Amino acid sequence: MSIATEPAPSSAGRGTQTVTVPRGLSGVVVTETELGDVRGREGFYHYRQYSAIELAQRRTFEDVWHLMLFGELPDATTRAAFQARTAPLRHLPGSLAEILPALARSGNGANPLSVLGAALTAAAGERGIRPLYDLTPEERRADALFVTALVPTLLTTLYRLGRGLAPVEPRDDLPHAANYLYMMTGEAPRPEQARAIEQYLISTVDHGFNASTFTARVIASTGADLVACLVGGLGALSGPLHGGAPSRALDTLDAIGTPDRIDGWIRERVLTGDRIMGFGHAVYRTEDPRSRMLREIAEGIGGGQVDFAVEVEKQVLGILAELKPGRELYTNVEFYAGVVMELCGLPREMFTPTFAAARVVGWSANILEQAADSKIIRPAARYVGPPPPQPVPSA
Amino acid sequence: MSIATEPAPSSAGRGTQTVTVPRGLSGVVVTETELGDVRGREGFYHYRQYSAIELAQRRTFEDVWHLMLFGELPDATTRAAFQARTAPLRHLPGSLAEILPALARSGNGANPLSVLGAALTAAAGERGIRPLYDLTPEERRADALFVTALVPTLLTTLYRLGRGLAPVEPRDDLPHAANYLYMMTGEAPRPEQARAIEQYLISTVDHGFNASTFTARVIASTGADLVACLVGGLGALSGPLHGGAPSRALDTLDAIGTPDRIDGWIRERVLTGDRIMGFGHAVYRTEDPRSRMLREIAEGIGGGQVDFAVEVEKQVLGILAELKPGRELYTNVEFYAGVVMELCGLPREMFTPTFAAARVVGWSANILEQAADSKIIRPAARYVGPPPPQPVPSA
Repeated sequence: MSIATEPAPSSAGRGTQTVTVPRGLSGVVVTETELGDVRGREGFYHYRQYSAIELAQRRTFEDVWHLMLFGELPDATTRAAFQARTAPLRHLPGSLAEILPALARSGNGANPLSVLGAALTAAAGERGIRPLYDLTPEERRADALFVTALVPTLLTTLYRLGRGLAPVEPRDDLPHAANYLYMMTGEAPRPEQARAIEQYLISTVDHGFNASTFTARVIASTGADLVACLVGGLGALSGPLHGGAPSRALDTLDAIGTPDRIDGWIRERVLTGDRIMGFGHAVYRTEDPRSRMLREIAEGIGGGQVDFAVEVEKQVLGILAELKPGRELYTNVEFYAGVVMELCGLPREMFTPTFAAARVVGWSANILEQAADSKIIRPAARYVGPPPPQPVPSA
Repeated sequence: MSIATEPAPSSAGRGTQTVTVPRGLSGVVVTETELGDVRGREGFYHYRQYSAIELAQRRTFEDVWHLMLFGELPDATTRAAFQARTAPLRHLPGSLAEILPALARSGNGANPLSVLGAALTAAAGERGIRPLYDLTPEERRADALFVTALVPTLLTTLYRLGRGLAPVEPRDDLPHAANYLYMMTGEAPRPEQARAIEQYLISTVDHGFNASTFTARVIASTGADLVACLVGGLGALSGPLHGGAPSRALDTLDAIGTPDRIDGWIRERVLTGDRIMGFGHAVYRTEDPRSRMLREIAEGIGGGQVDFAVEVEKQVLGILAELKPGRELYTNVEFYAGVVMELCGLPREMFTPTFAAARVVGWSANILEQAADSKIIRPAARYVGPPPPQPVPSA
């Protein structure tokens, strides 16, 4: 829309060369990234140059959040400053206290990720958020801190309002993860719960390229504001073909019920080709590294459900090895993520929103990386309908 | 997340072949479509097999809406049934009357397209919308009718509430376009205004492949619900690099002010390389066919501003031909779209939302087409940061 040099025409049918690629853009490299990757055959994934699992084992959520946005792990001074900067951002901006009750009521029939998006949009309005295109890198990071700090408050407030409970104000003295559990229940979590959920959140911050990350980056490539990009990512994550749902694996444990029923229940599902939630992954050809870590966390807390989950896993893997040899099917992140979140006192309907609360960090980092590129992502379509123009018949 | 056959690994770094393509996926064909295309060198675009301009000249908005969703123009009987089906959908679902005032207040700092998305999310919750993945084609179309019928009501209600005005209830006896103007002002529009805005809306329903359409299709490929896809499209449309803003061209007319100032004002901008809003397009190498139609519509209504706009266009094209010979710069859709919308009594802040009210039809048709394909759109990224794993330093 400028008299300056126009970009080259880019759509099929626009008179330019088109490129034919695999369906679903599978294997098509759309961007370079310094944020991380997944090595499916090695059972390894990383955030920047660090193993994500090692970060979860050795660092705090705030440290990894800082790493993703600022490019490096903080030292003690930086960590203190980062905590002092982000903790006050947990409090709801003015008009949100008015809009969230209405959203909680109308949101019962919508998916909770979309409702979170609507709440974030209202918060963005309160903030006066501006397009990425108009902002400096530092201003973009400030928006990302605002959003990530606020998401747990939005989620727990919507959850509690939806059940007729009074919202719990955030506590600035608690770490990000512990404060999330605190706002959910109104009670400070036990240290092992706070650390377990923190490790889960760290392990979920990012996971290579996927449909929601790509969606967020496409919107970012138009120069839209950060929240518009995140809302798109939330929408993609809500799609059944995108990702898992940690609550489904727990539902499976409930359906099996008791240890003596495991073998029969699993064999029947495998032989009829039914899905067994919590097993198999599109990328990993080894044990999912997140699964291994979360099992260890669950075992550290312990209890009857953990023992039962470990026994189910053992028998599923044994039966799969017997009935589907060579299929390389392993436990995926869903299985023990659900167990860990339940051990931490999170209700099942909050499992996927909790995943999103962590992934907001990875999306934001991707959005900021994309915003440094001025090229819009705009592929082409090939028209295959009847040739135009056919005369328009009279009405 | 299944023990059935897993999809092939698809991301860079996942051990599969990757494909290198032009930046921004320019010219990369991601889908086949029967919905339409743009022929930039011919100055032609079409919806299915019909010229979009001819449709705007000869048909109603409802006819074209039906064409896009159902694949054919309606006959008289089908048209009557379609009107009887869609007009009642204009009324706000229950809790929206409660949530829109809160959204209107908090939305002042957000872009209006995002606020529309939040309102649509609340409406989707009220409807109990379900993922595309779980719906039949007919159920998906029903969701698309629900959304498109409701958008004008949401936009006009948000607009009026934001200015302390009482919302105007929709009238079922008016056509879609006329009712939109009625709800904005509270007065039935003059016939030439109603027809002018109807023709504008028809001409804006779709326009080949672009970033917002692609965003909506990526989200649809995850199986998410229709509104989640549309909200992503709205987010992309809000990006400054995506599209135009018809109000900017009017702002330019205002800045020029009087006919005697045109030549000096334009020459100065062209010589300093500044943008002149309303001229130049990424695709068209001829006059934008929408611009030509909208100019004729504006001239049919007439008035001093129309005469001034025509004079500005004439002088801009003359100066560009003189100072930038061979650049193929023509008037784009922004220029006369703004003139037409102002003639119809729409306030400038509603120009882009009005565009979106029409484009919801094209997005919906694209989403439904994508939903018929079961393949998720998930390209790859190439990691280019320092090699992992580096040891995580102690906290």
